[in-house]
Amino acid sequence: MGLGDLRPDPVALLGQAAYLQLAWFETATAIAGRASDLTDRETLTRIAAVILQKHHELVDLVTARGADAAEAMRPYTAEVERYRRKLGDTGWHESVLTLHLATGLLDDFFARLGSTVPEQGEHIAAILDREIGHDALVALLRDAVAADRRLTSRLALWGRRLVGDTLLLARAAVATTRTADGRDTTTDDVRVDPVLTELIAAHTRRMDELGLTA
Amino acid sequence: MGLGDLRPDPVALLGQAAYLQLAWFETATAIAGRASDLTDRETLTRIAAVILQKHHELVDLVTARGADAAEAMRPYTAEVERYRRKLGDTGWHESVLTLHLATGLLDDFFARLGSTVPEQGEHIAAILDREIGHDALVALLRDAVAADRRLTSRLALWGRRLVGDTLLLARAAVATTRTADGRDTTTDDVRVDPVLTELIAAHTRRMDELGLTA
Repeated sequence: MGLGDLRPDPVALLGQAAYLQLAWFETATAIAGRASDLTDRETLTRIAAVILQKHHELVDLVTARGADAAEAMRPYTAEVERYRRKLGDTGWHESVLTLHLATGLLDDFFARLGSTVPEQGEHIAAILDREIGHDALVALLRDAVAADRRLTSRLALWGRRLVGDTLLLARAAVATTRTADGRDTTTDDVRVDPVLTELIAAHTRRMDELGLTA
Repeated sequence: MGLGDLRPDPVALLGQAAYLQLAWFETATAIAGRASDLTDRETLTRIAAVILQKHHELVDLVTARGADAAEAMRPYTAEVERYRRKLGDTGWHESVLTLHLATGLLDDFFARLGSTVPEQGEHIAAILDREIGHDALVALLRDAVAADRRLTSRLALWGRRLVGDTLLLARAAVATTRTADGRDTTTDDVRVDPVLTELIAAHTRRMDELGLTA
C-alpha cells in the first residue's frame, strides 16, 4: 500500500532518512565492535558498510537539490538520538534484534514515504529498499536462540518493546516532513494508518521467522 | 626506502593489516559519533568509509589466498586492542590527531612491508597507500587549534605521546608476520631501523604542518 499524495517536503524527508541511516550505521558499527566472534564482527561490518552507502546516496540526493546535507539532517538529530538512547544500552543480542527489526520497519516506511516525492521518488525508494543483509542477522539470531533457550523470551519481550517506539518515530516523520500546504492532518492519518498496520504485520512476520512471539 | 627481502608471511601480514583497518574504521566511526558538528561528523564518516573499503579489499586478498579472514586476523586482535586502549579515552581532538598521525604512520609502514610480498605486493601497497582524507583531518585540526590556543600544547604533547606506541606496534609487526625461514632477526633490525627513522621524519612533518612541536 502506498502513501498516495502525501508528498512530504523532499529535503526534509531526505534529511531525516539520511540521518537515520547515519545513526544505524553507527549502531551497526558499535554492535560489530562488541561482537565476541570475529566472523560475526565481519558480518556486522559488511551490514554497516551497506547502511553507510545508503546514507551517502541519500546525502548525494540532498546535495543534488542544492541543499546542504548537514542543514537538512540537523532538525532530526535530537529526536533520532532520543530514540537511540531509549533502545540503547541493552545486551548484545537485543541490539542485533533492534538493528534487524527497526531498520526493516523504518526502511520500509521511509521508502513508501519517499516514493511519493515527485521525480526523485523512485530513486529514493530504491535506495531505502536495498537489502542490508537481514538474512545474516536472522541466521545469527537463530543460532543464538538455539544455543540458549532463555534468550528466546528475552528477545520476544524486546521485540515487542521496540516496535512501539519505532512506529512512533515513523508516524512523527509524516508530521515533521510535511509541506506547509494547508492539508488537514486528519487526511494524513487516513493515509498513514493502513500503512502502519502493514508495517506491524511485517514486524510480526519477522518475529515469527525468529521463533519469537510478537 | 623499502624493506628489501623481508618477505613476511603473506596471510599473517594481510591479517594484521586488515585487522588494523577494521580497528581504525571503528575508531573513526566512534570519533564521528562524538563530533559536536554534523559537518565534521560527515567528514569523519567519509574517512571511515574509505578505511572500511581498505579493510574489505585486504580481507578479499586473504580470501583469494584460500585462507579464512577471521582466522588470519585473530592472532593480532589482542595486541591491536591493547594499543587502542592505550590511546583511547582522550579528548575528541586528541582522538582526531591519533587517527591522522597513527594511520599515516602505520599505513605507510604496512604498505612498505606488504610491498615485499611476492605477486600481491604491489596490490597490497596500493590499498594501504590509498589516501583516506588526511587533508580534511588537517583542516579540522588547524581550525580547532586556531580557535583555542591552549589546544596547541595539549595536542603537541599528545602527538609526541602516541608516536612511541605506534612505532612499537609497527616494529612488532615485523616479528609477528615473519616467516620461519631461519633468517637472523638482527638482519630484520638492519632492514627496519632506517625505515622507522623515515617514519619518524614523516611524523615530524605532519606535526609541523599542524603547527605542533614534535
